[in-house]
Amino acid sequence: MKHLALTLAMLLSFSGFAQTDAQVFKSIYSASLTKGKSYEWLDYLSNQIGGRLSGSLNAEKAVQYTKEELEKLGLDKVWLQPVMVPKWVRGNKEYAFIESGSGVTTTVNICALGGSVATPIGGLKAPVLEVDGIASLQALGKEQVAGKIVFFNRPMQPDIIQTFEAYGGCVDQRYAGAMEAGKLGAVGVIVRSLTLRMDDLPHTGSMTYGNLPNAQRIPSAAISTNDAEKLSAMLALDPSLKFFFNQTCRQLADVESFNVIGEIIGSEFPNEYIIVGGHLDSWDLGDGSHDDGAGCAQSMEVLRLFKELGIKPKRTLRVVLFMNEENGLRGAKKYAEEAKQKNENHIFSLESDAGAFTPRGFQFDCDDAFMDKMAKWEPLFKPYLIHYFERGFSGADVAPLKTDSNVCAGLRPDSQRYFDHHHAANDVFEHVNKRELELGAATMASLIYLIDKYGI
Amino acid sequence: MKHLALTLAMLLSFSGFAQTDAQVFKSIYSASLTKGKSYEWLDYLSNQIGGRLSGSLNAEKAVQYTKEELEKLGLDKVWLQPVMVPKWVRGNKEYAFIESGSGVTTTVNICALGGSVATPIGGLKAPVLEVDGIASLQALGKEQVAGKIVFFNRPMQPDIIQTFEAYGGCVDQRYAGAMEAGKLGAVGVIVRSLTLRMDDLPHTGSMTYGNLPNAQRIPSAAISTNDAEKLSAMLALDPSLKFFFNQTCRQLADVESFNVIGEIIGSEFPNEYIIVGGHLDSWDLGDGSHDDGAGCAQSMEVLRLFKELGIKPKRTLRVVLFMNEENGLRGAKKYAEEAKQKNENHIFSLESDAGAFTPRGFQFDCDDAFMDKMAKWEPLFKPYLIHYFERGFSGADVAPLKTDSNVCAGLRPDSQRYFDHHHAANDVFEHVNKRELELGAATMASLIYLIDKYGI
Repeated sequence: MKHLALTLAMLLSFSGFAQTDAQVFKSIYSASLTKGKSYEWLDYLSNQIGGRLSGSLNAEKAVQYTKEELEKLGLDKVWLQPVMVPKWVRGNKEYAFIESGSGVTTTVNICALGGSVATPIGGLKAPVLEVDGIASLQALGKEQVAGKIVFFNRPMQPDIIQTFEAYGGCVDQRYAGAMEAGKLGAVGVIVRSLTLRMDDLPHTGSMTYGNLPNAQRIPSAAISTNDAEKLSAMLALDPSLKFFFNQTCRQLADVESFNVIGEIIGSEFPNEYIIVGGHLDSWDLGDGSHDDGAGCAQSMEVLRLFKELGIKPKRTLRVVLFMNEENGLRGAKKYAEEAKQKNENHIFSLESDAGAFTPRGFQFDCDDAFMDKMAKWEPLFKPYLIHYFERGFSGADVAPLKTDSNVCAGLRPDSQRYFDHHHAANDVFEHVNKRELELGAATMASLIYLIDKYGI
Repeated sequence: MKHLALTLAMLLSFSGFAQTDAQVFKSIYSASLTKGKSYEWLDYLSNQIGGRLSGSLNAEKAVQYTKEELEKLGLDKVWLQPVMVPKWVRGNKEYAFIESGSGVTTTVNICALGGSVATPIGGLKAPVLEVDGIASLQALGKEQVAGKIVFFNRPMQPDIIQTFEAYGGCVDQRYAGAMEAGKLGAVGVIVRSLTLRMDDLPHTGSMTYGNLPNAQRIPSAAISTNDAEKLSAMLALDPSLKFFFNQTCRQLADVESFNVIGEIIGSEFPNEYIIVGGHLDSWDLGDGSHDDGAGCAQSMEVLRLFKELGIKPKRTLRVVLFMNEENGLRGAKKYAEEAKQKNENHIFSLESDAGAFTPRGFQFDCDDAFMDKMAKWEPLFKPYLIHYFERGFSGADVAPLKTDSNVCAGLRPDSQRYFDHHHAANDVFEHVNKRELELGAATMASLIYLIDKYGI
């Protein structure tokens, strides 16, 4: 009888425990889906401000707007953290064509890569050398590369299920292609856009010249996938064709910008920090809705949900809207540097920077013990169709905070459509679904709730 | 030593077994994503044919097109199964406005519900009675309902995670609203569109008059969610306002149409049938890409993948493209009837009719034993992010095939965006993502491969 009573007590206590968390989850999801603010914030960032390239007027507008919105939430503290950021400007709309031996020209869609130098005034015309990657380029050597426009045309692999992995298999062409081609005497670089979709939109993104002297810094642009196929097909017929492109982009002096930070001070462990964030800057071709206005709006929504639902965190909960993720990571570096200086113990840092699509789960940069803990929490997420809990990369902005003893994590939304929009003119608000965005915010808030309550 | 050898043999045999299936899965997904035909087929159905209302010329074009495409696949048999279907026609574009007491009119967006009668010639104008459902209507009684246009305005619940469940909570208004209002002397019915999105598009769908005499059959239309909100707000200010609508739709005599069927005869158990299907008809406002051109293209792709990869099924594998799911289910009933007459043993029937979005898993109408079997297969699906395996409703077209001993199933794609497009003018090809469609086809083919190999 005593044994039975004990069992009953344990069952009741267990179900009491479980039900409480399940109920909080339900209230978080319900609040996000019925009276959430994330979609409204994203609408403003996207449609009233627009693309937010580091150092631009729009980026500064976004800093002011999000600071003001955070101030309305009744957090304990909202502030701006100054950081110097690079200021790269695109200049005039880029222009390019393929010129056949007979002089007939075919216009194609390109855009300068972020950080690229301009072409010489009036543009650049040269024969084209198509390669499938940096290794192939290097194998050809200076003699075949010098004087050419190098055309990197390795496509993202469609049979890789997780599109970020396919992206990882190609991004070296965009990031380091111009640097490596410049070393071999090439005069320009054209890179196939990093998307799995066949369309006419060029996709920009960051690139580097490393420590190359100015003389070897050659202009670099992305070409749409349809035009990459066209150029490749025309080259097969006429290897002596020429490519022309003109771009007037340039790198100006660094300017001051800001990370935007808001916090609720923890009631029991104020010196343990949990942060949630996205990046406020974006590329300039679209309005940066998926990358990463969404992550900012969702991160702000996490703190708003805590306030609205009266959940008082035991640990200090911060939202950080990082500046300059796209072309410098200066905001992330500055934040991590100051956190270290101040000896702030960041136990858990969560980033949303993989689009506003239906959330599937999280990736954790952590030890086995944390994954065991997480496994016990997974059933709480099941009613919300959150099923993906894997070890792996967290996110570019939170990764600098990683230590031996803390956890960094990234929200993982469905990735199938992400690269259709990534860094292109169609990364715009209309391609964000309200429910998917709100489900992401609720999923983040639910995890943060558990981390705050039980620690790592 | 003998024991060790046995263990080793078992391990090898197990890993041999497991790896083979994993390899087949990989080849199926890879073939669908790199050289699949589903997107091309759907493009034709959507953009070259268009909306395929039962009994329409487009529906007949779709029958001929898919039959011809199946014939190209080298199946053992392709045929048309005749079936008489209802022929409802929309007539002229519907027109509606709200008229205030002062005679000012506000145009709103409506569309006739499928199966509705027309308004009287020149249209219908009457005061409006807003209700939140059939029960509320019935509570009001004849006195308050007679002579009114009944406005059903219960919205789908946004805090239900699975949108089909939210739909299920509201669809009675659309399906039976006019029948119930007609019994109480109402003159017309306006139903809030069944979508979670706030926009200007009316969403059609089937409705019934049951056995009501013609005199009580009143016209019924859907109104866009934005206009439903507008009408409700205006009614709150002026309960005596009137609503006008005009529609010229009508029900003609039944016409002959067809289910399109193709099969590969099983090598070991030809009398055990496994079918995979979608429905070829659609509503007429969009081109029926998600509902259900996608399901047809994916089902055809399952058999094409078997042929391309040289997988010879042990059981007879059929693709069935059902006619008239939307407003009669005549194709499904005919197919089930003939299968019964011929004593065909349909051990497993899989339907795709929930959109072309990223596949998440399946719902099974089955017994516990099958779910146990399925649980052992789940790890094979994990690399493809397929995680949802639950008991539940299969699909409208395969449900009539259910017996005590077989299994019916439905593909379950991500449902968050589905009702944004369902039965509306924006259910069009451009809202289908190629990879998501192809992942769905591969997921279906992989399950069918296991069912064929191991049975149920």
